[in-house]
Amino acid sequence: MKNNEGSIVRYISILYRYGQSYITKRLESLNIGSGQYGFLMTLYLKGGINQEELSCYLKIDKGTTAKAIRKLEDEGYLVRDIDLKDKRAYKISLTPKALEVIPVIQAAAKDWENIITSGLSKEESLLVEEVLYKMAEKAYYIKENSEENER
Amino acid sequence: MKNNEGSIVRYISILYRYGQSYITKRLESLNIGSGQYGFLMTLYLKGGINQEELSCYLKIDKGTTAKAIRKLEDEGYLVRDIDLKDKRAYKISLTPKALEVIPVIQAAAKDWENIITSGLSKEESLLVEEVLYKMAEKAYYIKENSEENER
Repeated sequence: MKNNEGSIVRYISILYRYGQSYITKRLESLNIGSGQYGFLMTLYLKGGINQEELSCYLKIDKGTTAKAIRKLEDEGYLVRDIDLKDKRAYKISLTPKALEVIPVIQAAAKDWENIITSGLSKEESLLVEEVLYKMAEKAYYIKENSEENER
Repeated sequence: MKNNEGSIVRYISILYRYGQSYITKRLESLNIGSGQYGFLMTLYLKGGINQEELSCYLKIDKGTTAKAIRKLEDEGYLVRDIDLKDKRAYKISLTPKALEVIPVIQAAAKDWENIITSGLSKEESLLVEEVLYKMAEKAYYIKENSEENER
């Protein structure tokens, strides 16, 4: 499986895709489709944001975001209201039904984390979390700055 | 940015999404849309496989795969032929035009890797690659076995 061209990027891609697949399967009975739990978790962590901000934050195109939001709304996981700050936009909020499934999503994510870290020593496990945190911070910083320059 | 519920999963998600966004932006002038470079890289690394195998391998649903394949075909990056092993399936091959852009995709992925690892010590960088490799192998093993059990 190893190759030298951007191996870290490749392993991250495998871990992300397989993780998505595992978590989505765990949530099947809740009618939360592939990738949609990411929308719920983001809305939970970031508070009420509008549809465009959600699309931008998740780096998911507007069409796919709109489709996922509509599906989650139909399932009773969220409500859309006109955004009072921007009347062309929809502010999205989680329903009590969604708040009930947040711990289920977190448990599925935690179980997946336990699976992929199960072969690691305690030291490796702590270190990889620390280093991934540093890399995610760097990615976030770079991204924010490049978007700042584009404005 | 830290939280204790599946932090590793969360950092991997951030790194994946921001990486996708960076690499896609680098490939804009080549008319390779969001996420489509993943299809090209997989076809390059796995050799000629059919559309269903590609969808299954990438954990991307059939509709999205079909759309991406059509777009890449229109842009002259791949050709589809009836799969001689399974006449209902399409075998997909990269064109010379695609083979020319593979090094460009690899360079973009490598640059992104250099960006996110730039704050790390040499030891941290080597160790994170090693540990991510172990985790990706574990994810792959678990996935293959759970699919085996479903057959």
